Amino acid sequence: MKVSQNRTKAIGVFDSGLGGLTVARAIRNQLPSEDIVFLGDIARVPYGSRSSSTVCKYAQACAKTLHEQNIKVLVVACNTVSAVALELLRKNCNYPVLGVIEPGAREGANVTPGGHIGVIATHRTVASGGYEKAIKLVDSTIKITSNPAPLLVPLAEEGWVDGEVAKLVIQRYLEPLVSVNIDTLILGCTHYPLLRHTIEEQLEKMSGRQLPVVDSALATAKELQLLLEKSGLSCQEDTKGSLTILVTDMPEKFSETAMRFLDGIILKENIIQVDI
Amino acid sequence: MKVSQNRTKAIGVFDSGLGGLTVARAIRNQLPSEDIVFLGDIARVPYGSRSSSTVCKYAQACAKTLHEQNIKVLVVACNTVSAVALELLRKNCNYPVLGVIEPGAREGANVTPGGHIGVIATHRTVASGGYEKAIKLVDSTIKITSNPAPLLVPLAEEGWVDGEVAKLVIQRYLEPLVSVNIDTLILGCTHYPLLRHTIEEQLEKMSGRQLPVVDSALATAKELQLLLEKSGLSCQEDTKGSLTILVTDMPEKFSETAMRFLDGIILKENIIQVDI
Repeated sequence: MKVSQNRTKAIGVFDSGLGGLTVARAIRNQLPSEDIVFLGDIARVPYGSRSSSTVCKYAQACAKTLHEQNIKVLVVACNTVSAVALELLRKNCNYPVLGVIEPGAREGANVTPGGHIGVIATHRTVASGGYEKAIKLVDSTIKITSNPAPLLVPLAEEGWVDGEVAKLVIQRYLEPLVSVNIDTLILGCTHYPLLRHTIEEQLEKMSGRQLPVVDSALATAKELQLLLEKSGLSCQEDTKGSLTILVTDMPEKFSETAMRFLDGIILKENIIQVDI
Repeated sequence: MKVSQNRTKAIGVFDSGLGGLTVARAIRNQLPSEDIVFLGDIARVPYGSRSSSTVCKYAQACAKTLHEQNIKVLVVACNTVSAVALELLRKNCNYPVLGVIEPGAREGANVTPGGHIGVIATHRTVASGGYEKAIKLVDSTIKITSNPAPLLVPLAEEGWVDGEVAKLVIQRYLEPLVSVNIDTLILGCTHYPLLRHTIEEQLEKMSGRQLPVVDSALATAKELQLLLEKSGLSCQEDTKGSLTILVTDMPEKFSETAMRFLDGIILKENIIQVDI
């Protein structure tokens, strides 16, 4: 199966599920003329609860599927894969491979006013230490406090993004970070931007001040723009690029959930089921 | 790979993930001398968000793996598979196949005092109409009101089974059921027994009376006992049976989560990873 790319080579983006659509959305806003092919491996989501060897195997299958789409850059819009399999993918691809952890970590390191960053992410991403390592590469004096916030994923998928339950869950996850006086918060999971407003609101309420909140999806889109410009890979057309979504399964509620992540900008005919 | 069954043929139990361990636990309590082989397909969990054809394919692979363990009965400890693939499995097996929906539905139909049953389950199970169909087969005059309660799964897995968040989430899910005056509640997901205490507490608080709460895992264990006795398949030994757990992946936090479902009764050497 080959999606037609008659204008230029596309940007390939993949995630274990639909969370990575927040990255595709950010890229589309940042680079509107680029063609984007997004692959969501929803037949095997979530990767966060799999072993490292299984994650590597799945990530390679996703990269191969996007490789067949004639892409010019591969964006790994999945924190688990970014933490576990990025080097492996880089070794096997002859084009740039960008994860979501490094851009988020770099932006966090740049904006932290006092050098104490809080990170919320899934259990798996926190356990990987990926954000810590990437932040320390920029500035080894920065202090990092991480807390897993797994329930934010189903809250985002259900659309319970504000209201009493979301507030209480967010407070519970932020409490250990606010109590040690973090001065910057990184949203280390691609689902969390859907809850950004409530997270910012509770963080301000709990800490008594406005703190910078870093969205890894936005940070990745900005780094991707620089990367394409530097490598001479940017699309030179000024018409609107296409967005194609490949999925490895097509469950009944798929469109509804996808729309929630994309603000309704995808047409059904641009969603294609693939076997990988 | 063949797990030794030197006493008798075993009871095979499978689920997409670990929720089905509540069924294995109930069977172990009900039938302590039976050997049980549980298969958790955690490399491909959750089935609830997959298409029906994918669920059928996965269910057949699980059944085949347990078939190779020389089992005498197959218990489908997964509501999604019970709703979608039970007939298919029955056609392909030469021993009894028992799902979790029919026993829960039958017990609900037997205990409802006024004939109005509420069902909470995942989106997928509710959409399948499985509980409605099974209850109507017992008594077509019974009224059924269902409400998806998907967040209870991650709450159970995280161990947030009481406290303010669990109470609020449960209240939100029970409200549409209590407001139409259900007189019985079926817990239609294998994860929910972990939250049973808080569910019963909130149900009583909201409805102002004690209502029967049906746990499909317990109902299934009771029906299994009758089935084995009727078919002459019961184990005749009176020593304690074994519990073997097969898993299709072995993530880092596996033991911790498994213990939560089993009350810590499993030894690490009885957990075996298999490829299916």
